[in-house]
Amino acid sequence: MNTSISSVADIESLIAALPAADQAAAALWAARDPQLTKPPGALGRLEELSLWLASWQGRHPPRLETPRARVFAGNHGVAALGVSAFPAEVTVQMVKNFEHGGAAINQLCRTFGTELAVVSLDLDRPTADFTKGPAMDEAEFVAAFRAGMDSVPDDTDLLALGEMGIGNTTPAAAIACALYGGDADGWTGRGTGVDNAGLIRKTEVVAAGAALHKGKAPLEILRSLGGRELAAMAGAVLAARLKRVPVLLDGYVCTAAAAPLEAACPGALDHCVVAHVSAEPGHQRLLSALGKEPLLSLGMRLGEASGAALAIGVVKGALACHTGMATFAEAGVAAG
Amino acid sequence: MNTSISSVADIESLIAALPAADQAAAALWAARDPQLTKPPGALGRLEELSLWLASWQGRHPPRLETPRARVFAGNHGVAALGVSAFPAEVTVQMVKNFEHGGAAINQLCRTFGTELAVVSLDLDRPTADFTKGPAMDEAEFVAAFRAGMDSVPDDTDLLALGEMGIGNTTPAAAIACALYGGDADGWTGRGTGVDNAGLIRKTEVVAAGAALHKGKAPLEILRSLGGRELAAMAGAVLAARLKRVPVLLDGYVCTAAAAPLEAACPGALDHCVVAHVSAEPGHQRLLSALGKEPLLSLGMRLGEASGAALAIGVVKGALACHTGMATFAEAGVAAG
Repeated sequence: MNTSISSVADIESLIAALPAADQAAAALWAARDPQLTKPPGALGRLEELSLWLASWQGRHPPRLETPRARVFAGNHGVAALGVSAFPAEVTVQMVKNFEHGGAAINQLCRTFGTELAVVSLDLDRPTADFTKGPAMDEAEFVAAFRAGMDSVPDDTDLLALGEMGIGNTTPAAAIACALYGGDADGWTGRGTGVDNAGLIRKTEVVAAGAALHKGKAPLEILRSLGGRELAAMAGAVLAARLKRVPVLLDGYVCTAAAAPLEAACPGALDHCVVAHVSAEPGHQRLLSALGKEPLLSLGMRLGEASGAALAIGVVKGALACHTGMATFAEAGVAAG
Repeated sequence: MNTSISSVADIESLIAALPAADQAAAALWAARDPQLTKPPGALGRLEELSLWLASWQGRHPPRLETPRARVFAGNHGVAALGVSAFPAEVTVQMVKNFEHGGAAINQLCRTFGTELAVVSLDLDRPTADFTKGPAMDEAEFVAAFRAGMDSVPDDTDLLALGEMGIGNTTPAAAIACALYGGDADGWTGRGTGVDNAGLIRKTEVVAAGAALHKGKAPLEILRSLGGRELAAMAGAVLAARLKRVPVLLDGYVCTAAAAPLEAACPGALDHCVVAHVSAEPGHQRLLSALGKEPLLSLGMRLGEASGAALAIGVVKGALACHTGMATFAEAGVAAG
């Protein structure tokens, strides 16, 4: 795979020629599933998940030997505008917490046998205030996007994506608002728990950013409003598609980071399952715009890929059923 | 614990004196959770789950070393009335499939490190046709209920319950209809996939059974309409409460089996989390009647404790977060 991208135009070229789902693997799945000792369809979305793994890994049976989680961290110019309940220093403090194994994502990755890497993106250099101009210039954006692309090893068989970045539900909301329109308040929530005055400030920042940058091409919206960790997540989603790696998207920020790919090329997120719907209200609205049905709905709003990592357990269960169950013939069960 | 029950009255006595949640364990949970490196509430229902484990295990930290799944199998007089897409012989065939490790529940238990036992209840002796009289006499009912009670070892720290029994969404719907009223069609679905003519027959059977037995005491409704596997699940739920074992209920049949306990004594299911909402439409209606919010919604309708076993993965993730995360002080993270 050629990841030597050096411009937004290079990224757009990659997006214009994405590989499709593997029909041969899907056909093998479809030949096996009806033989398994269950009524047709009785495993619901677990059946969709094993088909999704086969189709996007491009093999049947699919495998889950090396699931990986990637958490990208960035800092944001708009954090200085009072949009978060936490100070910007917490981003680097939480990265240390990830590195020492103390965060929620560490526990979840351990529980589900998932390798975790944290990628810090210039934490000492916040993006520019997007209410004044683009958050990143092209070189900054491409570097962050490429860091995301480079974070996906070839042998990954499932990728869980997430982020850490104080203030980053603000760029998420601004991206969604710029891409899909509507009032800023419909896209803006309390994030980690901002108070009423903070929510008013945050909504004004979202509205100003969306007003300044809407109408641009989708990747330009991501460059203009997104932080580095959002650009990196988009890069990881694209690299995964090129490497035949199914992706679990996490919450609002992660989905907003990926949305410009879909806006640039409908179908670009077909290899992605949204792991959960966040308690952040804009997330459900964004999922509706994308036509994505989340796998879990547990009121989570932590980020860090925590919802995506939790969903790995569900995917493991789905795969185990498809590959391990006996057929009606093997088990001597009447097929109804 | 005294499980030497010999009558419905003995069971009612046990239900009348259920142990409460452990407030000391809950207080220890509440002292730790706000210190963990996350915004308050950001793990959503994962926080509820670790609190639930602590409260009902009666210890902090709670543990998940010996989760167990129990699948009860029974046959039903009403299966002869054409209410199912599968012949009654499939019950015993599927029990063999469980024993040989070929069913969905085997794969899910293996995935989540859960011990599985299958308890067959007089499969060669279907219950009586409940449209003509009670499905079980008192001795049959008590024997099945006791089998459920006896299936829960003292060292169980989480119990996933489920069932196998061709035709058993019919007694489930009839119990729900008799307990909560309403038209039979609102409680009756296609189960494993009965056709239109079968659904009409099934609805008539549900209506006839509910009409014949409604107004009885809740446990009498369970005896009159339930199969042996339903009585056994109710017994397991009760034994778990007495042994301080939190319970994951599976789908429609499992929830309908447990509902008479709640009807007999409000709060009797407080130690139970409903693992998922089934695609069988009566299940959501039953959950609303019980005031229970399901953990997962994945369109599953297999039974076998499959949804409950899948939820064990989520509970494991929840516990790992609560016990393994660093505190703000430990991690040197500003608490916002």
